[in-house]
Amino acid sequence: MRPLVRVPLGALVEGEQLLDAAAAHYLTRVHRLGPGDPFVAFDPVLALEADAHIAALAGPRVRVRCEAPRPAALRAVRALVVVQCVAKADKLDAVVRDATELGATRFVPAVAERSQRRPSGGMTARLRRVAVEAARQCGRGDVPVVDEPRALAEAVEELAPRGDAAVGLCLEPSAAERLAACARELGRAASVTLLVGPEGGFTPGERAHARAQGYREVALGPLVLRAETVCAAALGGLAALGFAPFG
Amino acid sequence: MRPLVRVPLGALVEGEQLLDAAAAHYLTRVHRLGPGDPFVAFDPVLALEADAHIAALAGPRVRVRCEAPRPAALRAVRALVVVQCVAKADKLDAVVRDATELGATRFVPAVAERSQRRPSGGMTARLRRVAVEAARQCGRGDVPVVDEPRALAEAVEELAPRGDAAVGLCLEPSAAERLAACARELGRAASVTLLVGPEGGFTPGERAHARAQGYREVALGPLVLRAETVCAAALGGLAALGFAPFG
Repeated sequence: MRPLVRVPLGALVEGEQLLDAAAAHYLTRVHRLGPGDPFVAFDPVLALEADAHIAALAGPRVRVRCEAPRPAALRAVRALVVVQCVAKADKLDAVVRDATELGATRFVPAVAERSQRRPSGGMTARLRRVAVEAARQCGRGDVPVVDEPRALAEAVEELAPRGDAAVGLCLEPSAAERLAACARELGRAASVTLLVGPEGGFTPGERAHARAQGYREVALGPLVLRAETVCAAALGGLAALGFAPFG
Repeated sequence: MRPLVRVPLGALVEGEQLLDAAAAHYLTRVHRLGPGDPFVAFDPVLALEADAHIAALAGPRVRVRCEAPRPAALRAVRALVVVQCVAKADKLDAVVRDATELGATRFVPAVAERSQRRPSGGMTARLRRVAVEAARQCGRGDVPVVDEPRALAEAVEELAPRGDAAVGLCLEPSAAERLAACARELGRAASVTLLVGPEGGFTPGERAHARAQGYREVALGPLVLRAETVCAAALGGLAALGFAPFG
């Protein structure tokens, strides 16, 4: 059986409501649903979802009926923060999609010394839309918080691991230690902060600052991965080592 | 120090040679190298590399001198075969790039029952170019073999795990077992074959066939990942669990 179509709604309350144009288009044009057809409505910010169906169509306007909202079935249960240094714009879109599918709870675009590009004004809003769309596609009921871009040093300090159940990792291809060496800590960790460098990597000063803040330097392997690959590979590695973001 | 520019050469022999137009453009236009500037030439098929420098420029023609070739420093030391069911064309490009960076030694495009697209004529040639380009960028000295597309059932049989040191994995979001459960086998495995389904997933018949051929069904997590994400996340997971492709 095909899973039901999922649609993010801003205000998920029991009863009838009119859809906005984007949601209406998605249900009736992309998926060709009609009156009586069921779907799942979800509120990614509150991590709620509800059974719903189309109540009536009137031209382009679509009236739907939602049942009582319930907590989303698939939502992240551990804090997984990805601090991703800014690369070219379309690459960050791909990284946010990967991070959402693989359980990140917060995504922080950071500007490092070797970031080749300053963030543009509309970037954060676009990344938030990308995260919601990725949550819809993969069946996740919540969505990572996407921060405004900030200086790497500031993010490193604010999100540094504090306490026994917090792990901070700085991905660095030249690190002596592999991610696999962190299996024991990851298996019992309640939160992970992951630092992913820009193309060109972290500077020696940035690495020293992260170490001083309690981050461990680990390598995924000896090669220099592209920004689009490294986040997915690292989050796949965390999950394999027992830091299963969805429980 | 910036790593040296790497250029794939078809015939890597000691002595002087003229570059083809693409390699000449790359060295002198993209990277603006001139006479005397060093670079690394590599033959991704034979996994050889050599120190080299530009000997002379004559208009668009570039003469280079290569020292004696040596085995490439970073090359895959374990067999890692990715059988990727065909999705949209540009997605396969991204998957081949990820697979190359993360140590695949062979990439097999497969046509499954739910593959929404038949492979086009030029696909294999393009994927081979993508693999060489990814090897150049990430510093890998060899390149995965890219097969012609074939039926999934045929690939599943030919590449099935045989013997104690071979592991076959079928990635299936609904599997009861997680990838992490394979840590012991992966740590001592000499080869891994990974089956990645199309959008829409494997059919029950395809799953049963893979199980009968000795593949274990494992999930990366409860969500349905996009084709572009799943390969990178799975290979990151394998590396984290001790199947380090580059040793």
